[in-house]
Amino acid sequence: MHSKRAGNQTVVFKQPPVILAGYNVVGPKEGQGPLKDTFDMVLKDSYGQEKTWEKTEIKMLETSMTRAAAKANVPLDSVDYNLAGDLLNQIISSNYAARKIGLPFIGLYGACSTMALSTALGAMLIDGGFASKVLCSASSHHETAERQYRFPNEQGNQRAMYAQWTVTGAGSILLAAQGEGPKITSATIGRVLDYGETDTNNMGAAMAPAVADTILNHLQDLSRQPDYYDLIITGDLGTVGLQLLLEVLKRSGLQLSNNFSDCGVMIYSSEQDTHAGGSGCGCSAVVLTGHLLNKLKSRELQKILFVGSGSLHSSVSSQQGESMPAIGHAVSIEMS
Amino acid sequence: MHSKRAGNQTVVFKQPPVILAGYNVVGPKEGQGPLKDTFDMVLKDSYGQEKTWEKTEIKMLETSMTRAAAKANVPLDSVDYNLAGDLLNQIISSNYAARKIGLPFIGLYGACSTMALSTALGAMLIDGGFASKVLCSASSHHETAERQYRFPNEQGNQRAMYAQWTVTGAGSILLAAQGEGPKITSATIGRVLDYGETDTNNMGAAMAPAVADTILNHLQDLSRQPDYYDLIITGDLGTVGLQLLLEVLKRSGLQLSNNFSDCGVMIYSSEQDTHAGGSGCGCSAVVLTGHLLNKLKSRELQKILFVGSGSLHSSVSSQQGESMPAIGHAVSIEMS
Repeated sequence: MHSKRAGNQTVVFKQPPVILAGYNVVGPKEGQGPLKDTFDMVLKDSYGQEKTWEKTEIKMLETSMTRAAAKANVPLDSVDYNLAGDLLNQIISSNYAARKIGLPFIGLYGACSTMALSTALGAMLIDGGFASKVLCSASSHHETAERQYRFPNEQGNQRAMYAQWTVTGAGSILLAAQGEGPKITSATIGRVLDYGETDTNNMGAAMAPAVADTILNHLQDLSRQPDYYDLIITGDLGTVGLQLLLEVLKRSGLQLSNNFSDCGVMIYSSEQDTHAGGSGCGCSAVVLTGHLLNKLKSRELQKILFVGSGSLHSSVSSQQGESMPAIGHAVSIEMS
Repeated sequence: MHSKRAGNQTVVFKQPPVILAGYNVVGPKEGQGPLKDTFDMVLKDSYGQEKTWEKTEIKMLETSMTRAAAKANVPLDSVDYNLAGDLLNQIISSNYAARKIGLPFIGLYGACSTMALSTALGAMLIDGGFASKVLCSASSHHETAERQYRFPNEQGNQRAMYAQWTVTGAGSILLAAQGEGPKITSATIGRVLDYGETDTNNMGAAMAPAVADTILNHLQDLSRQPDYYDLIITGDLGTVGLQLLLEVLKRSGLQLSNNFSDCGVMIYSSEQDTHAGGSGCGCSAVVLTGHLLNKLKSRELQKILFVGSGSLHSSVSSQQGESMPAIGHAVSIEMS
């Protein structure tokens, strides 16, 4: 087997897997935001006819999986692997969605970096000869995350101005060995970095260094400058984290053009009172499967670097005084 | 890329990755059990000089990772990927261990099936041309699991006779594209099955059908009978689950020989009062990296099927009345 590795951390696909289709389901708040026209399904309320928010998130994820396959005209039972992850303890959203889907299942945990991680791994499974079709997904739900990580939703706690708002959303892509569509051309799996941030409201600050590290390694591994890409889009640093990322990259001597953005910054308008923007595995999942895929298919964007960013702490680790380790995973998606 | 798929769910490696070395760390109870001579490091108490049990589990996992690489004479920074998972919310044991290790990290959640999952994926990354060396790991800790899933340890709750005892243990293998040692020849990623079991003390019963499904698919995909293997070892069904598994397999028309066992059954003696045996991601991880690797290297075993089994519920899903979905992942390990 000839190595597909480039540099320290990057792999370049020999036969780049294709995104045949993407599908997403979001909550009402996301459905009122600037990207509202790019979502396939918008729930009327946070429950979407289920009895608990957790069951809602499971249902959203299951829907995005089945409909991504349907949109790609691929029978669900011809899909080789189902890769997914979410924020909930023991990734129950993914496990219970996978129970319904019935495909060989690989459960992932990468916090908000999960969509990039599932896409990177899915592409490796295909290009490695282990699959011809793979579903890659991620989800989050504002209310399930709030009550797990922070406070009961009913309490209506005030939020820090630099805090991000967990997106209610699930997104899936159907990756295939052959077909028409944007291609996954390379992937850079990130390292876990921790610069000592302990304020769990400030996840953007915790994640920025890890994301910078992955972007710098990716560009170095492939001898590219940032302007190789039409867009380098992180998900989800929010406004605070994005600013820090650009600062770190500048100090690292990188020539920055105006092609950086962040899914968490894009998904809500400033009138929506989400403070530093969106977060949660679902955020980059629904921006990828909606806005970004649309722009790629219309060729407004030809080459993007999609960089998932995850804060890898838990309530328990924070209670024990630990700082927040973080990670960034990057996949380049290109129209050929 | 020629497909490496066989049948419905199995992949066969073209250049089977090699287990260069394994390393494990266990707690005192495991160190007094029947497999005590197969463990590399035994902690004197459940804390192992750390201040919290969670920090102990992190340290154990980190130790197994670094020492597996050292035992294989592989510089840690030459390893391409670090794959790991555990039972704790947001897999903090793996995340914080990965922070120390500093390698590109892929976080997994498969409950007690994690060691088989990390091994299967690690082998795919190598045989797919994406890596030449990979660390595959899993861990659990009795006290961290008890207080997360069940009751405060200090409470000393009585346990059901059919309940399993979460193993305190961490195990890592160093997989490589080349070298001497047992080889990963094929892998079968499982589907999530749920037969409606709601008693969280009875995980063996929840997992048995999913494990049976994976074993049946594996054998069918490769046109093998169970006696192809010297040992088919599940991890971890415990005594109740193993009995159910054999029952399901018999009813499925499989000719069973006496080559079935379970890591959870092997790790404790009946005098150790663990009731139905061991469980937890660490159980199959330390049995694989100790007892099984030893037997393979001495050629007492030439061909084994290592089948990780995971119950994919959480406290929240159980509190919401959900039954327990489960999964089994299989890897065949052979001496050539």
